[in-house]
Amino acid sequence: MLAENNYGKSGIRLVKIFRGPDRHEVRDLTLAVRFEGNFQAAHSAGDNSQVLPTDTMKNTVYALAADHPMDSIESFGLDLSAHFARENSNVSQVTIDISELGWDRISVKDQPHPNAFLRSGEEKATTRVVRDRSSAQIESGLSHLRVLKSAGSAFSGFRRDRYTTLRETRDRIFATAVTAVWKYASSDLPFAGLRKSIRRALLVSFADHPSESVQATLHEMWAAVLATHREVVSIRLSLPNKHHLPVDLAPFGLENRNEIFVATEEPYGLIEATLKRSP
Amino acid sequence: MLAENNYGKSGIRLVKIFRGPDRHEVRDLTLAVRFEGNFQAAHSAGDNSQVLPTDTMKNTVYALAADHPMDSIESFGLDLSAHFARENSNVSQVTIDISELGWDRISVKDQPHPNAFLRSGEEKATTRVVRDRSSAQIESGLSHLRVLKSAGSAFSGFRRDRYTTLRETRDRIFATAVTAVWKYASSDLPFAGLRKSIRRALLVSFADHPSESVQATLHEMWAAVLATHREVVSIRLSLPNKHHLPVDLAPFGLENRNEIFVATEEPYGLIEATLKRSP
Amino acid sequence: MLAENNYGKSGIRLVKIFRGPDRHEVRDLTLAVRFEGNFQAAHSAGDNSQVLPTDTMKNTVYALAADHPMDSIESFGLDLSAHFARENSNVSQVTIDISELGWDRISVKDQPHPNAFLRSGEEKATTRVVRDRSSAQIESGLSHLRVLKSAGSAFSGFRRDRYTTLRETRDRIFATAVTAVWKYASSDLPFAGLRKSIRRALLVSFADHPSESVQATLHEMWAAVLATHREVVSIRLSLPNKHHLPVDLAPFGLENRNEIFVATEEPYGLIEATLKRSP
Amino acid sequence: MLAENNYGKSGIRLVKIFRGPDRHEVRDLTLAVRFEGNFQAAHSAGDNSQVLPTDTMKNTVYALAADHPMDSIESFGLDLSAHFARENSNVSQVTIDISELGWDRISVKDQPHPNAFLRSGEEKATTRVVRDRSSAQIESGLSHLRVLKSAGSAFSGFRRDRYTTLRETRDRIFATAVTAVWKYASSDLPFAGLRKSIRRALLVSFADHPSESVQATLHEMWAAVLATHREVVSIRLSLPNKHHLPVDLAPFGLENRNEIFVATEEPYGLIEATLKRSP
Repeated sequence: MLAENNYGKSGIRLVKIFRGPDRHEVRDLTLAVRFEGNFQAAHSAGDNSQVLPTDTMKNTVYALAADHPMDSIESFGLDLSAHFARENSNVSQVTIDISELGWDRISVKDQPHPNAFLRSGEEKATTRVVRDRSSAQIESGLSHLRVLKSAGSAFSGFRRDRYTTLRETRDRIFATAVTAVWKYASSDLPFAGLRKSIRRALLVSFADHPSESVQATLHEMWAAVLATHREVVSIRLSLPNKHHLPVDLAPFGLENRNEIFVATEEPYGLIEATLKRSP
Repeated sequence: MLAENNYGKSGIRLVKIFRGPDRHEVRDLTLAVRFEGNFQAAHSAGDNSQVLPTDTMKNTVYALAADHPMDSIESFGLDLSAHFARENSNVSQVTIDISELGWDRISVKDQPHPNAFLRSGEEKATTRVVRDRSSAQIESGLSHLRVLKSAGSAFSGFRRDRYTTLRETRDRIFATAVTAVWKYASSDLPFAGLRKSIRRALLVSFADHPSESVQATLHEMWAAVLATHREVVSIRLSLPNKHHLPVDLAPFGLENRNEIFVATEEPYGLIEATLKRSP
Repeated sequence: MLAENNYGKSGIRLVKIFRGPDRHEVRDLTLAVRFEGNFQAAHSAGDNSQVLPTDTMKNTVYALAADHPMDSIESFGLDLSAHFARENSNVSQVTIDISELGWDRISVKDQPHPNAFLRSGEEKATTRVVRDRSSAQIESGLSHLRVLKSAGSAFSGFRRDRYTTLRETRDRIFATAVTAVWKYASSDLPFAGLRKSIRRALLVSFADHPSESVQATLHEMWAAVLATHREVVSIRLSLPNKHHLPVDLAPFGLENRNEIFVATEEPYGLIEATLKRSP
Repeated sequence: MLAENNYGKSGIRLVKIFRGPDRHEVRDLTLAVRFEGNFQAAHSAGDNSQVLPTDTMKNTVYALAADHPMDSIESFGLDLSAHFARENSNVSQVTIDISELGWDRISVKDQPHPNAFLRSGEEKATTRVVRDRSSAQIESGLSHLRVLKSAGSAFSGFRRDRYTTLRETRDRIFATAVTAVWKYASSDLPFAGLRKSIRRALLVSFADHPSESVQATLHEMWAAVLATHREVVSIRLSLPNKHHLPVDLAPFGLENRNEIFVATEEPYGLIEATLKRSP
């Protein structure tokens, strides 16, 4: 018995250049399109008559991009999902995932260049639009936001058992790669401005919060967003603890005054939580 | 309001050598441990008294590995989760993820060497044990299983719209990287033998099934497993379509007799489904 | 006969925090140490008495980092190589490779935070110090500098043969990931300031040069550096052509006014050249 | 002054299916083509009249693949380079790099399937053909060959200084990812058979050699190849030391009988050497 199924196209790479009179704009997106619905015949009888090819999904993204203003990735996702839902009555749910890489302008003689750009970094702006027959839900977010604080982070007073060897510390490096996803209350919002404001709230609370643990800072980052953005109904944060271990210099007759660290990739702590508004 | 939360350690790299009298065995595992439960105080009050450090989770994995026979990754996951549940009464659910890389023996004068090994490939054996206060659920699987068939694969008779340019074909390359996850009916089963048998069933049905689509082959692979393994209650397959596009040689006065292909990474189709036994 | 040999430690991850009275500084380095010399006995007789362990090389990096001001990666590389050469008389040549990732300050209320940082991106500052018994040579550079220009780039008038299908264009996207390496005339220079100035020259010439080809722009970027930096004796550039292909929208009844592109990873053009000063 | 320059196309993905009467064969290649020569006009004057587009290089690879038997990657590289040299008199040197991934047959009822395949692993067969106006040189090799031995490996008696903390050991894990490159004496050799035989010699000597160090084993692997393959004039090996560190279980009241290890990625030792025949 087919319990659930979906299919679609992933890794659709789209770069759009807006050629304004004075300067160009670049949007650099990667998209995925996914259909859910009754595809029983395709699965069990090899009948493809209800299967729109994933190649067509890709073509549609490029065709609809041609005339779209792309004021936000959310608005493009909403329009793409509406098109697919309208044209495919056999599909019960359409999901559009979009992630965007940023490009800053190269500065020439202290002026931003009109058409030459420098990749902003590996941080991605993300959105997921899930549209069924009655409505569309929007979850936006960001990922690969690498941050580090070298003061104001402790981890002490924790539970111990016979396998615990970790030392307590009142002064450690806290480094992470933030993945955040927040759910919007509506599909008619100024998404681009909200994104900037939510990102700023996350960064400021990370920087300023005196941290007793990753958990406590995560909670503070959430709270900062929910307190100031009524448009957001819930937020999920995933914070890998990118451990920076102090190097023991004692064997060399040196003291490590909390200055010399090994940055490690594995293993890593992983702390995740979702906060919702109380009803 | 804290809706859900979890924390743990990921990327725990463990290699165990079993030093038998005649030959060695290697187990090469990567583990993740995750706790869920009431950690409200850690989040909102910076109170770590209920937080076992993720460093301790890692230590525990190494300590418990010392005496474990590791007859299967499932049995090790079951024992790890039981230990953590027993020792941490504040934890409502423990999740253990294990993935294993294989090592074949190097052949010397047609004999398998007793202690020299060659990595089998990038395929991974996986398991997830989720244990709450009453029971443990086991979902095992495999990933990164790269397969390709050069005959017996078609895609035709599909739905078309104004953005469809794909040509129908009765003879294409079907290449994918299988990710499979199956749920076991019980936690007391001969896991190592079952894994071999399920993997074989997946491979044979992929190879032999005359494919009308990725969906149809996926359905056949599922069915092959469920029909012959009563221990399995459901199976999920995720099949990216690793497109191999025939190269147009006509501009060079040559015919491509379905022999010359470009292997592409992006974009890629992605077909996923879960099959359960009918009640 | 042993023709050449080297050994060393790679992937040494070092983060140093400078704890100033008003604010912290972060240096985030990855290093490699490599020895060349007469290690014939180790190779052919299993005699390790002249082999300093690579683990010791790693320890030495951390120990020497403790008191080093790290005003530039070049100065740290010079001091590390001098230490190893002095202490290991059997080594004929020591090579130190250092790459550095940048961290910007998080902005809070329009002020740069004293100890909270945001990863600048994937661009790396690099240096290689090669020290033999008489002198040290320094080659510095940068890598992973992702740039794109959406105007001022053409490729036409090229050689054609029977396999040529590429269309000429006077207006294409030029996107690349710059790897640059320049050789300094001396080991006593203001390296940190020179790096900033050379990087700026590369970016400005990339942005402003009306490009007839990757080759022509590469030549212009070189020339810009050599013309304005007497401290540089040669420069090597490696420019992958990150192709952005215009999407054919004609099948959908749409015109692509050079706005909609697919960004591709493979295959890619690769253009490399070294420019030296004329003697 | 332009000191050296080259350009070409990299990342050309080619899969060829040979459709024999009884069964299919798959060749899965990635190629790079590179030209060197007098391209001064392109660099300094924006004159592309001597520049064959890299897109044409890619097309040529696919066109020449159509009729090529591909009995070895070396023979395909030789023919590709000969074509480019013949057709481009302005090019002084053509370099062709080819790497190949293997596909094993899926076994069905203990019989190898005629057209269904399983990726052999991440190991790559490689070759580089460098052709100038007078001759062609061939360097073949392999990479990503992951091997591990759990006995017969020691590291002791090494040089110590004040930063040395490493303990001597007579029993450690030796794990590496072999990259080997060997130079052939001629361009008219049975390359496919030689490759198999050289690979076997490398594996057997790795497995059987009682290792006093990575250097000593590397030397033995070389020697094994040169002693038995007169067609090879030199061989270069690059062996990263994939450290497996014994876990200290003493804090938990347990003994580690050299059974429990952490596999680490960074930092890693790197040992490289080239052996030539004595003249």
